Amino acid sequence: MTRWKPDAQGRLMKAAIELFAERGYDATTVTEIAERAGLTKRTFFRYFADKREVLFSGAEQLAEVWLRGVGDAPADAEPLAIVTAGFEPLAGIFEERFEFARLRAQIIAANPELVERELIKLQGLAGELERALLARVVSLNAAILAAQTGMTVFHVAFARWVEQDDPTSFGRLLAQSLEELREVVAAIPRPAV
Amino acid sequence: MTRWKPDAQGRLMKAAIELFAERGYDATTVTEIAERAGLTKRTFFRYFADKREVLFSGAEQLAEVWLRGVGDAPADAEPLAIVTAGFEPLAGIFEERFEFARLRAQIIAANPELVERELIKLQGLAGELERALLARVVSLNAAILAAQTGMTVFHVAFARWVEQDDPTSFGRLLAQSLEELREVVAAIPRPAV
Repeated sequence: MTRWKPDAQGRLMKAAIELFAERGYDATTVTEIAERAGLTKRTFFRYFADKREVLFSGAEQLAEVWLRGVGDAPADAEPLAIVTAGFEPLAGIFEERFEFARLRAQIIAANPELVERELIKLQGLAGELERALLARVVSLNAAILAAQTGMTVFHVAFARWVEQDDPTSFGRLLAQSLEELREVVAAIPRPAV
Repeated sequence: MTRWKPDAQGRLMKAAIELFAERGYDATTVTEIAERAGLTKRTFFRYFADKREVLFSGAEQLAEVWLRGVGDAPADAEPLAIVTAGFEPLAGIFEERFEFARLRAQIIAANPELVERELIKLQGLAGELERALLARVVSLNAAILAAQTGMTVFHVAFARWVEQDDPTSFGRLLAQSLEELREVVAAIPRPAV
């Protein structure tokens, strides 16, 4: 189910997430992470600025994959369709990291400081999605609404995915959450004109 | 256009926001705020825990008014209609505070620490909206999607409101943003079943 990369970085991530889960995030030191991974502190700092970055270094790849999907969307696609065009490649990379994602979600939920950091990172990514939409000459409001809404759908699907046991379900949960959003929005009465 | 309350709390808020705008948030002290308001530091601390709280003490009232609107929504209303039922009373209280809201938005945008705090507060409010929806036996996913989507619409309308000059336009901007969201979501192709 889990596929930890056997390289130094993968070993450090595995060691860190295990220690965070066992002892708590605050109580774990970089020295202990390196020790558990059978590596030196110096090697740790070659890959991560601090222990928090073990949890957030994946954010750049998330952004990169999502934005690449956005870039590959057809030129005439609607704003929200452009945003959700990144979902399929995203599902692929997340499925490979199910165990890490699940433990990571638990560790973050237990630490308000990490929740803040996560919100800021996701908000930053929503901003990048907005800029990618604006570059396609989408209106500013449509860009913000589509980027934020796409982020909400991603967030909901992600929370559902880490609470169940099938690593391969992420793509399906993304599609389901998008469909539920459509229903939630379609159900409000049209305004009187 | 501005209606600062003439009481001590209102005078402190006015003094604080003016000083933040003139000198920057970091460079302003509680002593200076109290002095500008013609009051003592002791009086300041009767109303606010610190200078940051001058900017965020309104969040409780925002939550209270929004949740009261949610509580007053018809029993059979759809989830997103329940969330947006709070918009009308919200527009009323914000219009009275246009000048404060506008300066506040600029001060927050210029300080990453305040942006974080704002995101956390809004995320907390989205959580309260979710719980209010769940109490009405809405499904968990619909509750999260409706609460987050309602928050996005609020956020977009708010950003537009503080960038123009008509204090009375907030209600109209909320309705417009909701309609734009509807268009953005309706425009995505239905999934192949």
